[in-house]
Amino acid sequence: MTRHHNFCAGPAALPTPVLERARDEMLDYQGRGLSVMEMSHRSPEFVAIAEQAEADLRELLAVPDNYRVLFLQGGASLQFSMVPMNLLGRGGSANFLYTGIWGKKARAEAEQLGFGVHTAGTSEPSGHSQVPSQGDISLSADAAYLHYTANETIGGLEFDYVPDVNVPLVCDYSSSILAEPLDVSRFGVIYAGAQKNIGPAGLTLVLVRDDLLGQRCERTPSLFDYRAMAEAGSMVNTPPTYAWYLAGLVFQWLKHDIGGLEAMAVINARKAAKLYAAIDSSGLYSNPIAVNNRSRMNVPFVLADDRLDKPFLAEAEEAGLLNLKGHRSVGGMRASLYNAVPEAAVDALIDFMADFEQRRG
Amino acid sequence: MTRHHNFCAGPAALPTPVLERARDEMLDYQGRGLSVMEMSHRSPEFVAIAEQAEADLRELLAVPDNYRVLFLQGGASLQFSMVPMNLLGRGGSANFLYTGIWGKKARAEAEQLGFGVHTAGTSEPSGHSQVPSQGDISLSADAAYLHYTANETIGGLEFDYVPDVNVPLVCDYSSSILAEPLDVSRFGVIYAGAQKNIGPAGLTLVLVRDDLLGQRCERTPSLFDYRAMAEAGSMVNTPPTYAWYLAGLVFQWLKHDIGGLEAMAVINARKAAKLYAAIDSSGLYSNPIAVNNRSRMNVPFVLADDRLDKPFLAEAEEAGLLNLKGHRSVGGMRASLYNAVPEAAVDALIDFMADFEQRRG
Repeated sequence: MTRHHNFCAGPAALPTPVLERARDEMLDYQGRGLSVMEMSHRSPEFVAIAEQAEADLRELLAVPDNYRVLFLQGGASLQFSMVPMNLLGRGGSANFLYTGIWGKKARAEAEQLGFGVHTAGTSEPSGHSQVPSQGDISLSADAAYLHYTANETIGGLEFDYVPDVNVPLVCDYSSSILAEPLDVSRFGVIYAGAQKNIGPAGLTLVLVRDDLLGQRCERTPSLFDYRAMAEAGSMVNTPPTYAWYLAGLVFQWLKHDIGGLEAMAVINARKAAKLYAAIDSSGLYSNPIAVNNRSRMNVPFVLADDRLDKPFLAEAEEAGLLNLKGHRSVGGMRASLYNAVPEAAVDALIDFMADFEQRRG
Repeated sequence: MTRHHNFCAGPAALPTPVLERARDEMLDYQGRGLSVMEMSHRSPEFVAIAEQAEADLRELLAVPDNYRVLFLQGGASLQFSMVPMNLLGRGGSANFLYTGIWGKKARAEAEQLGFGVHTAGTSEPSGHSQVPSQGDISLSADAAYLHYTANETIGGLEFDYVPDVNVPLVCDYSSSILAEPLDVSRFGVIYAGAQKNIGPAGLTLVLVRDDLLGQRCERTPSLFDYRAMAEAGSMVNTPPTYAWYLAGLVFQWLKHDIGGLEAMAVINARKAAKLYAAIDSSGLYSNPIAVNNRSRMNVPFVLADDRLDKPFLAEAEEAGLLNLKGHRSVGGMRASLYNAVPEAAVDALIDFMADFEQRRG
């Protein structure tokens, strides 16, 4: 068995110790005679797993007591519907910062659902290479909340500040949650698809402030109701139990193997810094994003001659460096450096890039 | 490691060979150097897994070419919203056969979404011990479809026929799909939560006839759109990849280890028949359901003296017979005999029940 270096943007690499433990417990969870997958979600065993995962997440992110933690299905994309349906029951419009493909999709979904939308700031003039500044944000008079995307996974554009506004802040944190400590109290809602820094695809984490519960629009699916989900411990219906369990193992790994989010942030900063340095110092590779807004999680880069893309990818894969192809909508390359991608993988990538440039650049 | 006998109603037992293979492939899928969980859903490796799963399901159920197979999230309960939102865009009302808790929830959800609903038949007069007959079904004039629940997981009430109506038939097949061959062509939509006979919780299977696509109501979540999901191969957004993979392993097990659904049906019939016979011949246990409508998948039974419930459950668990407690809404016992519950488990349960009755009855 060989574990290659996996730079996939998502579903992404998981920590090897997490997968080892999942493997060892697959047929028999701690002597109970069955797999976690085979447990009732209401069994004491699974409820303990679920509660431990929530407690560990709360500890990692220092989640204040007036926030509820939900473990849902549907991916971050379903939150594009759920957020407005939960927050616009009392009227008002959804405001957006538009900094890339995911923010655009979130706005389009609110609009097609019939809600009022307003773009309160955008990185479009810069070709999505620089986020709008605090001073550039302009809410509509009827803004019920401001939605933004902390890190645009495809563009590789990341906010280097948390916007300060007088309406609840809603953040799609899918691709950078748990990469560093976070002041949850600044937000009304934080959501994240699991398949980057949390666990396997099929789980969505939602943190919602108490006072935002109970504002659901009429005639929306009852499973969309944050309040009902909060009151039922995310078990209005059967949750994705195995994904929840794996997320819990990832939280344990972050706490015990890594030492928490401050330690994780140091490692992530080092990983990203050395890869960007290698790109900037090369004559073959380049990244167009403003230095302060460069994503630490997703590093897109292009080769000066795109005829080299195919050999680059083929040779990288040959060298055990997987999933470096950029998103189909933008092309080029992308190295995702999520929490579970070890520093050694980044070192191996940098070595390969230098070698490739020397031979083919 | 010991594998106990697991009679859980869901998330339910999975075939041991499936879990063994998942365990063995956990860290490195077929020499690719990464877990299935860590693969992009658009990678050739995962696309092959996804396509094989669909092909195997189509073979098992002999799905006609004019049906699309969708692998979605949200559980069967989310279909309670998705079905009316997909099928009532041209008007009309949702008709229901009401035979237990799940059918009631489906009807309530359509109603709270603002759709017209009509109860076209019910087992309520019998205390949900007998399904309405074909002659008892009375559609409303504006019926757009008829929804029913093939097998009520909690009540243990199963249809012994497929209703014959002149509108599309929609069936919640969550707890009995793949238990026997099925004439898919009789249905407009079939859906099933995975966590009984398909795979782990967090995956929902939907079969939909081509001509029912494209009738979505306006202003519904775009991820709800069957047509969009069909056109995107269920990948409008990231699907629950690992659950999909496991479902594929279950389909392989059904094909190769069991020998297909006719063979599975024979085993299931034998399992249920011997447990009902044991119940009927005892002085302690009883099941109230009309013989023709007794579920082969979920066998609820009560003890003549409910003070024996606790010792029954405690001693059963001690004997390695897990999750026999009835649903909290009805009490008593329930043994779920899904595909992955081996006949030996049923034999062990029957032996235990006889022994318990002799000692305590």
